[in-house]
Amino acid sequence: MNHEEMTAAILDAKNRKGMTWEQLAEKVGMSPVWVASCCYGMNTMLEDQAKALCDALGLKGDVPQTLQTCPSKSWGESVPQDPLLYRLYEAIMIYGPSVKDLVHEKFGDGIMSAIDYKMHVDRVEDPKGDRVVITLDGKFLPYRRW
Amino acid sequence: MNHEEMTAAILDAKNRKGMTWEQLAEKVGMSPVWVASCCYGMNTMLEDQAKALCDALGLKGDVPQTLQTCPSKSWGESVPQDPLLYRLYEAIMIYGPSVKDLVHEKFGDGIMSAIDYKMHVDRVEDPKGDRVVITLDGKFLPYRRW
Amino acid sequence: MNHEEMTAAILDAKNRKGMTWEQLAEKVGMSPVWVASCCYGMNTMLEDQAKALCDALGLKGDVPQTLQTCPSKSWGESVPQDPLLYRLYEAIMIYGPSVKDLVHEKFGDGIMSAIDYKMHVDRVEDPKGDRVVITLDGKFLPYRRW
Amino acid sequence: MNHEEMTAAILDAKNRKGMTWEQLAEKVGMSPVWVASCCYGMNTMLEDQAKALCDALGLKGDVPQTLQTCPSKSWGESVPQDPLLYRLYEAIMIYGPSVKDLVHEKFGDGIMSAIDYKMHVDRVEDPKGDRVVITLDGKFLPYRRW
Amino acid sequence: MNHEEMTAAILDAKNRKGMTWEQLAEKVGMSPVWVASCCYGMNTMLEDQAKALCDALGLKGDVPQTLQTCPSKSWGESVPQDPLLYRLYEAIMIYGPSVKDLVHEKFGDGIMSAIDYKMHVDRVEDPKGDRVVITLDGKFLPYRRW
Amino acid sequence: MNHEEMTAAILDAKNRKGMTWEQLAEKVGMSPVWVASCCYGMNTMLEDQAKALCDALGLKGDVPQTLQTCPSKSWGESVPQDPLLYRLYEAIMIYGPSVKDLVHEKFGDGIMSAIDYKMHVDRVEDPKGDRVVITLDGKFLPYRRW
Amino acid sequence: MNHEEMTAAILDAKNRKGMTWEQLAEKVGMSPVWVASCCYGMNTMLEDQAKALCDALGLKGDVPQTLQTCPSKSWGESVPQDPLLYRLYEAIMIYGPSVKDLVHEKFGDGIMSAIDYKMHVDRVEDPKGDRVVITLDGKFLPYRRW
Amino acid sequence: MNHEEMTAAILDAKNRKGMTWEQLAEKVGMSPVWVASCCYGMNTMLEDQAKALCDALGLKGDVPQTLQTCPSKSWGESVPQDPLLYRLYEAIMIYGPSVKDLVHEKFGDGIMSAIDYKMHVDRVEDPKGDRVVITLDGKFLPYRRW
Amino acid sequence: MNHEEMTAAILDAKNRKGMTWEQLAEKVGMSPVWVASCCYGMNTMLEDQAKALCDALGLKGDVPQTLQTCPSKSWGESVPQDPLLYRLYEAIMIYGPSVKDLVHEKFGDGIMSAIDYKMHVDRVEDPKGDRVVITLDGKFLPYRRW
Amino acid sequence: MNHEEMTAAILDAKNRKGMTWEQLAEKVGMSPVWVASCCYGMNTMLEDQAKALCDALGLKGDVPQTLQTCPSKSWGESVPQDPLLYRLYEAIMIYGPSVKDLVHEKFGDGIMSAIDYKMHVDRVEDPKGDRVVITLDGKFLPYRRW
Repeated sequence: MNHEEMTAAILDAKNRKGMTWEQLAEKVGMSPVWVASCCYGMNTMLEDQAKALCDALGLKGDVPQTLQTCPSKSWGESVPQDPLLYRLYEAIMIYGPSVKDLVHEKFGDGIMSAIDYKMHVDRVEDPKGDRVVITLDGKFLPYRRW
Repeated sequence: MNHEEMTAAILDAKNRKGMTWEQLAEKVGMSPVWVASCCYGMNTMLEDQAKALCDALGLKGDVPQTLQTCPSKSWGESVPQDPLLYRLYEAIMIYGPSVKDLVHEKFGDGIMSAIDYKMHVDRVEDPKGDRVVITLDGKFLPYRRW
Repeated sequence: MNHEEMTAAILDAKNRKGMTWEQLAEKVGMSPVWVASCCYGMNTMLEDQAKALCDALGLKGDVPQTLQTCPSKSWGESVPQDPLLYRLYEAIMIYGPSVKDLVHEKFGDGIMSAIDYKMHVDRVEDPKGDRVVITLDGKFLPYRRW
Repeated sequence: MNHEEMTAAILDAKNRKGMTWEQLAEKVGMSPVWVASCCYGMNTMLEDQAKALCDALGLKGDVPQTLQTCPSKSWGESVPQDPLLYRLYEAIMIYGPSVKDLVHEKFGDGIMSAIDYKMHVDRVEDPKGDRVVITLDGKFLPYRRW
Repeated sequence: MNHEEMTAAILDAKNRKGMTWEQLAEKVGMSPVWVASCCYGMNTMLEDQAKALCDALGLKGDVPQTLQTCPSKSWGESVPQDPLLYRLYEAIMIYGPSVKDLVHEKFGDGIMSAIDYKMHVDRVEDPKGDRVVITLDGKFLPYRRW
Repeated sequence: MNHEEMTAAILDAKNRKGMTWEQLAEKVGMSPVWVASCCYGMNTMLEDQAKALCDALGLKGDVPQTLQTCPSKSWGESVPQDPLLYRLYEAIMIYGPSVKDLVHEKFGDGIMSAIDYKMHVDRVEDPKGDRVVITLDGKFLPYRRW
Repeated sequence: MNHEEMTAAILDAKNRKGMTWEQLAEKVGMSPVWVASCCYGMNTMLEDQAKALCDALGLKGDVPQTLQTCPSKSWGESVPQDPLLYRLYEAIMIYGPSVKDLVHEKFGDGIMSAIDYKMHVDRVEDPKGDRVVITLDGKFLPYRRW
Repeated sequence: MNHEEMTAAILDAKNRKGMTWEQLAEKVGMSPVWVASCCYGMNTMLEDQAKALCDALGLKGDVPQTLQTCPSKSWGESVPQDPLLYRLYEAIMIYGPSVKDLVHEKFGDGIMSAIDYKMHVDRVEDPKGDRVVITLDGKFLPYRRW
Repeated sequence: MNHEEMTAAILDAKNRKGMTWEQLAEKVGMSPVWVASCCYGMNTMLEDQAKALCDALGLKGDVPQTLQTCPSKSWGESVPQDPLLYRLYEAIMIYGPSVKDLVHEKFGDGIMSAIDYKMHVDRVEDPKGDRVVITLDGKFLPYRRW
Repeated sequence: MNHEEMTAAILDAKNRKGMTWEQLAEKVGMSPVWVASCCYGMNTMLEDQAKALCDALGLKGDVPQTLQTCPSKSWGESVPQDPLLYRLYEAIMIYGPSVKDLVHEKFGDGIMSAIDYKMHVDRVEDPKGDRVVITLDGKFLPYRRW
């Protein structure tokens, strides 16, 4: 079973059960973005986590094993076309140089890790229209000099 | 004066004065990411804001006017090569489908605006290594049905 | 059932029934462009709308549910090759800077939303040859300053 | 004088005079989108029109002649990055198949001309936020069978 | 039946019958390039024409109907690799600016229509080697000024 | 002097003299498309031809020599954006497979040369609108078997 | 049977029979590169040649006919990734301008035909390591002036 | 002095002296393709060779030194547009798989080196039209197994 | 059996047996990177090596033969998206010019062979976090002058 | 002074002084690859290091300051054309999946950092031809689960 087949099996079971990522995340005891990312073949679960997810969805067979296997990550189009994803891409590209300068001002030469990294999505109420708040939280990695 | 020339003039003055975006942001009375984005030709200031910035940097001539002129925004490479920017791009692409599903679960069909949008960069102390925390905060826009 | 299968099922039923998008739009009580866009997997219907469409086409099973599921939108070729679509693309690209300036003159810095957006296609009689008139109608969104 | 130099000269004079495309359009006696498109090197003016524009802007030399010379049209990036232009591109791509079907239902096999074509930008008041309304109006051209 | 399946069915029958496009064109009463283009899913036939073609080839079922359905035209590679097609592409690109200038000298600002358009392929005898003569014949369309 | 500088010098002199390619072609004693193509750096003239052209335009210096030097031909964008050139590209791509089949039916396996090649542009009167007629005329080259 | 299926059938039979292109070329009475190119769907055989090849490989059905049918040639990746093919590509690109100049010095303005063309691959013994010697041999085609 | 400036200086002197690559190659005592490739910044000369070339062309200053400096090789367009270069590219791509198989049949798994490599261009007389014969001659490099 | 099917069969057997590349490499008597590369269709084994691998994995049929057949190597995306592979790509691109200069300083004009080449992956303990150490080891190939 | 100008100034002084990266590295007290990478605008030096380098090269003005400024890293072509760099790219792409699997076998899910990273180039004597040995040495970063 490859990761595409695993994702299809999980999404199918999730739809049939009518469960949200938030509900599944509670079952696994981890955060929703991370749990979803594992199911999309972008991260690996530990054995217990994979078991908890598959129990919640009634999945057996190769799914728990594949959830623990390191995937080859890819995302097809280098520029996303879906409007929700494009807006994220656009925000990163437009504000990229500003963010880069501020990281360097606050930390020196280095980057925000995308590996020692976590991410959250929240809904914040606002009388002018509720807001999507996405938090990117990565360890600062300074460049090594050698 | 076009926006590239404006950016060069501002960065040059900023370096000569040894000022940070945070210091300039205080002078303008706005947030650092936004002030930097205007200086990179990605947003427009109001007259007072442009004046405050130029006073702080000792800039005259066409700079204040150009800061108020709507720019044609672009970012060259569709996939950034600078490692700091690439990590942001990578995080967005890897977690994109997960974020998309969570927005739809919390809000229904629609997107996070990149126009009614704000963004912050923070340094968060952590004994295992301080962390870069970037907040994307945009109004939810539901798709219109007509 | 994914959105490609849904589109194929709907187009097949539409052809067999010999119905136009205009007729289907009347059944659903919404506009033709929007109804067609849902069927092409580019928008989501409410439950009643999906039911009305499927009743008109004699479709059952997963189609009504998939019509209500947020799709991942994409359009393959970044530059369309079909002549009708290419002419639309060409018109947007050739007149893009002019349109941009006029929006800024009339509204200030911001954009026309493609989310709070509607679109119509009309045939206008003309003695020199009837004309296709396409109306793009989106809410103006001013850039937030923060 | 090539068309890029012509555009730069016109935009410079327009800014110095503080005139809008609407004001210039009135001087020329044509519509604003079309007048702007000529100044961006995307269309050609007749001699009288070029003269009226240059008189309004105080321009002489090669500008009037270049305004009457057929340009080689191009727009650089095949997918625009400026958010205002990208939204237009996105709207055309997402609703393209729907628009195509409706044109064929109303007219048969053929296209909307981008040559025998006109375009308008309007501001429409709306209590929920004013709207940008863009009208694309092109002659229907049926495919010739031979 | 989509247009790819239609093309495959027609080419298969054409090969089995050992008929040329010229012979089929005679049956349909139209020119060979146009008849072939319909069979490649690049144009639509009228009902009589589709019937005549299918009778000649012994085809039934959905083929006649699909021949009358507006196709979504595309050609895959933006630059063709087949040597015969590449030479056509090369000739157009190398002589493009020259052809453009001559059209403008003879007609003014406008284009040759690719819609109100016809095309012929001929073999012309020549003692130094026979020649392929291809004629592109399209209506001149002047740009509208508005 | 490179070919870009040569082209600029010729176009400048041609504009100042107000001469057309047809008039220059008469001076050189060759056809207009070919003469223009040499001036665009896409073909080489013989010494007499280069001299005749430069005499007609009042050009001296390196121009006649550069007109006789083999250029490195290129055309920038692999897909042209100028509408007149795009229509030629589109016509070739849409009718390419049909033209290919007809050449093979009439000649066997081989191609139309783009080297032993000539091309003409004509205006043909037509009560429904005059037509642009472009003739591509190249020697048939059969594939060698070895 | 399309050309991909033909190639697969021939390669399969060749492997089962354990025959080399050189052995097959002897059976057909032509050179190995050319015979292999026909089998890869890049050239067409005459009836006798196709029959000889199929007899040697024990192939029947549509293979001999498809070997005689003009293929639509293509090679997928515009830059090859296989190291052997990439080295050929690299050699052509690095030495391209030098080769071009030498052809023009020896022949004048024109090209080496890739149609009236033959190619050989030889192994040449060398005490420092045997060498691959590839010969490209094409008719010189002078540009026509008209 | 970078390699582009060196190439420009050499080509300019070569044109002024009216010398061919063959004549220069004789002065340097090496083959014409290689000498030209050094001048195009694609290979490095030894000190004596650079001196001989510069003496023949009357060049001084940084040219001899730059001829000995390892260049960063590049060729711009990944697919060449000049017809002479495109034909070479096309021949390599069309016959690539055939050549690859023959190299493997004759040598086993490995490649033809493009580094321990030489290349010649010859004119071969032929009553049906003289032929361009290009020889690619590279050491066979077997893959190492480890 | 093509190389993709071979790879799938090997990976499937490897997973079922729960064997690592290191364990398989020991069975074959070669290094792990090389053994894995053969299984991914990027190198060819000798008969004994292929037999040893297939014995260890319980594979029969065409697998041993395909392991000995020269593959057509390719890697899909020219820029890898998987983060582990992207970091390798990034390191090569960022330090490329530095590495190039150092090779030329130490060896003169030439390259590191990727054919007479070996590669190792090691884990090196480090109190600040263990390190991945990858060694690229290729024969220096000097450019031939001819 | 931007980083391109800084690189040009350093390379120019380095050539005039006839110094190697190894000699400069000794002056700075760091490794040659890293020192070169700073000079190519790919890393930042500390104040002392920049001073030592500039003293060795006789450089003043903005160079030491620019060496300490965080650069925006980029490398132009996504696939390098220079043969030395291409071989590195090729080796990474061909052995990428094998390396990835071995890292996961030895460390679990994670990557080799390209930030906490060092790199060395060595010449290793070998009777069959000396070898280039390049060492990539980066900290292992495990994916965070959250």
